[in-house]
Amino acid sequence: MKFIRSLVKHIKKESLSRRELLTGAGKIAVGAAGIGIVSAGGLGILSEAQAKNTEFPWGYKKIDPARAGKIAYENWYKNFCCYGTTSGILLPLQQDVGDPYTRFPLEAMIWGHGGAVGWGTLCGCLTGAGLATSLIAGQEGELILNEVISWYTKTILPIYEPANPIAQIRQKNISGSALCHISVGKWMAKEGATFDSPQRMERCARLTADITIKTVELLNDWSDGKFQPSRRSQVAMYQMPTENKCRQCHSGLEPDVPGNI
Amino acid sequence: MKFIRSLVKHIKKESLSRRELLTGAGKIAVGAAGIGIVSAGGLGILSEAQAKNTEFPWGYKKIDPARAGKIAYENWYKNFCCYGTTSGILLPLQQDVGDPYTRFPLEAMIWGHGGAVGWGTLCGCLTGAGLATSLIAGQEGELILNEVISWYTKTILPIYEPANPIAQIRQKNISGSALCHISVGKWMAKEGATFDSPQRMERCARLTADITIKTVELLNDWSDGKFQPSRRSQVAMYQMPTENKCRQCHSGLEPDVPGNI
Repeated sequence: MKFIRSLVKHIKKESLSRRELLTGAGKIAVGAAGIGIVSAGGLGILSEAQAKNTEFPWGYKKIDPARAGKIAYENWYKNFCCYGTTSGILLPLQQDVGDPYTRFPLEAMIWGHGGAVGWGTLCGCLTGAGLATSLIAGQEGELILNEVISWYTKTILPIYEPANPIAQIRQKNISGSALCHISVGKWMAKEGATFDSPQRMERCARLTADITIKTVELLNDWSDGKFQPSRRSQVAMYQMPTENKCRQCHSGLEPDVPGNI
Repeated sequence: MKFIRSLVKHIKKESLSRRELLTGAGKIAVGAAGIGIVSAGGLGILSEAQAKNTEFPWGYKKIDPARAGKIAYENWYKNFCCYGTTSGILLPLQQDVGDPYTRFPLEAMIWGHGGAVGWGTLCGCLTGAGLATSLIAGQEGELILNEVISWYTKTILPIYEPANPIAQIRQKNISGSALCHISVGKWMAKEGATFDSPQRMERCARLTADITIKTVELLNDWSDGKFQPSRRSQVAMYQMPTENKCRQCHSGLEPDVPGNI
């Protein structure tokens, strides 16, 4: 029980630090060594070779957003949305940086398509952006992802215009949600397109390029020391994990937090 | 344009194969080489060293579910749910198999907590299970993940009883959803606990062990050639990415597909 109490104390301390990081407005440097200690501790000592292989985060070299967007768009048509953003961001790093980025098989993120193998939950574009920002920037990546998700929910999408579009689409819309089902469902209703139509595929391919480009733009700002989070975490705002617009389901609640939508 | 037409033809062929895989009841072998060709094609030729590093999937060595569950439970208290399932499944493989599993820093999946940095979307346990099943089993991992998500939505959770619980909880419930917000929100209402309470944390830690154990059990079955998908993909069933119980939001729709809930 002494060990457990010690563990809980340690965890609470770490949780507090982490919450402060997530809710703070400023940029806080988190060293790779520090994160490694927290995560490996208590589960046995990794060998030196293992420790080397699990260095984290992997760092960044600025990417041309247009290059990333083109990869994302084209790769949607190979393995869908989550693979699109993952490869749009990480393939340039595999090509320009090499190791450690070449350690990760980009195909391992295909599963995020359709909001997790078709369950319509988190848009796969954002799942890919989640892994990429984390590999690149560790806990600071969470601040970037938080911005990307917010932007996703309130921006008229898709924006991207491919040089050689595979299909033509007419409609754009604001999803109001990071959920695949709601995001693509609202667009399908507006376009009058079915899920298996070329138009729906083209919309998702273009949107994948948009999320990739936005994420790379923020990562480039971060790399230049210019990234400033515009919002607090959802949990800090609402005291539980949630999207915005609570009254869509909970009619008795207070209006949404001003400025957080 | 000839290239584009050729690309579209290729993509359609791949998409069909993939859909057949996802909707079929049988176990279909997908070679790593085949996936590699699809994913790398059209973006330049990877060097031989890069190709070696991006071998996929990484394979499996059976894990003791109790060992995985214990890691997941304890690691929830370090870095939350997504890190819990990721490390519960992949740390044993890092320790027992070594390379290539040691290439991936487990901390790179922390971001999935709270349904993606607190947005309340896909439960982070399932995000971790998604990456792990994919790294291990490639596209066959999607069939396993599909089962895990379904099980998550309709099982009374948490089941796991830690040897040394950090907090005591009274309630269990069926989430009816893979969404963090709904899953934890329903439990919080039943328990009468706030999100920052020790009880809520304990519930999520135990549930993280549950998802890890279920995933490992299915992976072990798969390793023994005994895994049989019990359900089709959500997209095959509903013609779009979605959870079940459509009429909760769409009152005019037909009843849910029998047997798919």
